[in-house]
Amino acid sequence: MTAALDLGRRAQAMLDALAALSDEDGRITRLYLSPAHRRAVDLVARWMGEAGLSVSVDALGTVRGSLPPARSGPTANRRLLIGSHIDTVVDAGRYDGTLGVVAGILAVQELAARGIRLPFGLDVLAFGDEEGVRFPTTLASSSAIAGTFDPAALGSADADGVTLREALVGFGCDPERIPDAAYAPDDVLGYLEVHIEQGPVLEIDNLPLGVVTSIAGQSRFHVTVSGEAGHAGTVPMTMRRDALAATAEMMLAVEDVARAGRDDHMVATVGRLSLEPGAVNVIPRRASFTLDLRAESDPPRAAAAAEIRRRFGAICEKRNVSYLMDRYHDTPTTPCAERLRNAFGRAVDDLGIPVRRLTSGAGHDGHAVHALCDIAMLFVRCRGGISHNPNEYAEVADVGLAVEALVGAVAAVAAEADTARGGGER
Amino acid sequence: MTAALDLGRRAQAMLDALAALSDEDGRITRLYLSPAHRRAVDLVARWMGEAGLSVSVDALGTVRGSLPPARSGPTANRRLLIGSHIDTVVDAGRYDGTLGVVAGILAVQELAARGIRLPFGLDVLAFGDEEGVRFPTTLASSSAIAGTFDPAALGSADADGVTLREALVGFGCDPERIPDAAYAPDDVLGYLEVHIEQGPVLEIDNLPLGVVTSIAGQSRFHVTVSGEAGHAGTVPMTMRRDALAATAEMMLAVEDVARAGRDDHMVATVGRLSLEPGAVNVIPRRASFTLDLRAESDPPRAAAAAEIRRRFGAICEKRNVSYLMDRYHDTPTTPCAERLRNAFGRAVDDLGIPVRRLTSGAGHDGHAVHALCDIAMLFVRCRGGISHNPNEYAEVADVGLAVEALVGAVAAVAAEADTARGGGER
Repeated sequence: MTAALDLGRRAQAMLDALAALSDEDGRITRLYLSPAHRRAVDLVARWMGEAGLSVSVDALGTVRGSLPPARSGPTANRRLLIGSHIDTVVDAGRYDGTLGVVAGILAVQELAARGIRLPFGLDVLAFGDEEGVRFPTTLASSSAIAGTFDPAALGSADADGVTLREALVGFGCDPERIPDAAYAPDDVLGYLEVHIEQGPVLEIDNLPLGVVTSIAGQSRFHVTVSGEAGHAGTVPMTMRRDALAATAEMMLAVEDVARAGRDDHMVATVGRLSLEPGAVNVIPRRASFTLDLRAESDPPRAAAAAEIRRRFGAICEKRNVSYLMDRYHDTPTTPCAERLRNAFGRAVDDLGIPVRRLTSGAGHDGHAVHALCDIAMLFVRCRGGISHNPNEYAEVADVGLAVEALVGAVAAVAAEADTARGGGER
Repeated sequence: MTAALDLGRRAQAMLDALAALSDEDGRITRLYLSPAHRRAVDLVARWMGEAGLSVSVDALGTVRGSLPPARSGPTANRRLLIGSHIDTVVDAGRYDGTLGVVAGILAVQELAARGIRLPFGLDVLAFGDEEGVRFPTTLASSSAIAGTFDPAALGSADADGVTLREALVGFGCDPERIPDAAYAPDDVLGYLEVHIEQGPVLEIDNLPLGVVTSIAGQSRFHVTVSGEAGHAGTVPMTMRRDALAATAEMMLAVEDVARAGRDDHMVATVGRLSLEPGAVNVIPRRASFTLDLRAESDPPRAAAAAEIRRRFGAICEKRNVSYLMDRYHDTPTTPCAERLRNAFGRAVDDLGIPVRRLTSGAGHDGHAVHALCDIAMLFVRCRGGISHNPNEYAEVADVGLAVEALVGAVAAVAAEADTARGGGER
């Protein structure tokens, strides 16, 4: 474990160096195409160069460090991608995204140091638009490498009225060259990403690493419940059509459905709720709330939404109120490919760590990259499940194990490539 | 019933005349001590004079029309009070309060027309500060007649910074004479008030009138539930400490406790609710809500509050969240005196109407007057239970029956007074 701990310390130093690059004093804020992002691009490019990668920055600001194949063979004209993002939310932590980029660079160094020669090319990618904070768009940079970037997004503007196109030009990028950022699907072997979990599962299970089975699909709904207002003192309980009391029952039904979907890693959240008229002595006429529903795969999520509708209907009928449930957002599940998941799984197992599989409830660049190629993700234990917050924290030892596992996964993909062509290098 | 219908029509004409007196064009708004209130005082004073009452306006703007006793005897130096209020909420209906004043004036006329000579004095009172909209104080004018007005309230100001003292002086009242507004308890036989129900009970029971058993006591609480925020996608259901999900269960417990208190006319309402942080993809860390709890009498209300606390504790313990429940307002129940309730009951029965007893969930001047003397109230059916709203409506026929019942109740009190002294007038 000393090698891993040493890797962890090197990673931590790099993470600290990136954390120092901020657009705001005293906290980490590095929005897409900002001055701090520019400095981060330059630092990452320097590290990539030092790791022996040939470096370029694509038309959406993604830093790309390329290692040519070390050996000839059928996969020699293909590339394995390793990536994550270097933009952050406002007042961010120092692991979200950056950990995956740093792990990729360190993995390249370790592969070289250990004399592991790959039968394919390897690109480390540092995306710039994962958090989606500055512009209305999100995953623009990872969409570009997948060839699915929508040029209409170039006209969208940030809060200061600066368009994405203007910001790119100011960053030194050429929007006309966006199509060149796309890989050809046939040229890519897959995409691997290391990321902090941003949830409490690994911490509670006392495990440093976990293998992601999928990036959860997501449905979001606006629900409005309409009853009848009335005087809090004069309308007997049996005569009420209380929109909030109905909503309370509906919220518990949502919770119940999500709990029943435990095997599908179902989660459901009511995060916003507002009332009309909202007075202490008036029975609420209307309650409006949001519902966020996620699961490991799409069919159980669709079934849960249908079951929730069914229960809402029954509750509202019983209470003589009405409801509207409007789905305003829907993202399908992004599965992690079994062969790449197994590569991570084997690497984790080789480190003597039980292989914990879990779903990513949060979105990631892999969602966009999945349009290009198979993807897989490795999660790193995250203290208290806290993320998007200065208190975001991962143990140095865990970070080191993550780099080791990434090295192991790349080696596993290489071994698989060798097996597929009937043996190792001769 | 033709006599009652005629009375209803006369009442309606008076209610319409009062409704025309507003501080706002196109809707009824007559706040305490406003120009519209001044005109209402003048109109009511004129009607009282026409009904043969001697009229005065006290130091808090209450119009008082006095009828001397028609006969000598032990109750000749005492007075029966009939009253309600002529101030309104903003954008009010035309029955709340005014109906009771109009009914009192018409009852005096009817008593005279029918040759019913009372063995006690009778005062009709038109209070000015029941709604409590303009100043932070409420029931100031009825408190004054009970001798419980708190002079500290004179310094309280309306939204324009005008103090109650300044407004009274501007209205032509002398704040120094407030103590003179108080009746001596020994001089008063009781207080009767006719009011629209402001709830749906009589309408649903298909009855025009109801006899109030008490003005419900009321407790109000601020409840704050504290859990833990988390990412809506990354925290499994079993690991959540969702303040809103706990609140949902707590709201249903509140409803359940109130329903179980049906025999005590228990009602409980959560009218306001707010969340932190209140984002679609964040598990709520904190939920704050108000709880309004009322019942026909105090012990079941106190027991319900204790039961609610007990259930809140169990729910929060189970969900690993915490709660604070702060009682910020508490008003004891105001009972209606049996002998006056029976006077109303006998009068209703004499009209061939089943005697429906019900609790007043809303507050009324009687609450303040109860500090002075026994009170009783008669409720009039109110369409849809709607009040504090331009759609507030009572049938002309029902209003007429209410005046009839008031006349009957006064006659019943007179008969009781005669019986108590051993026979009628000789």
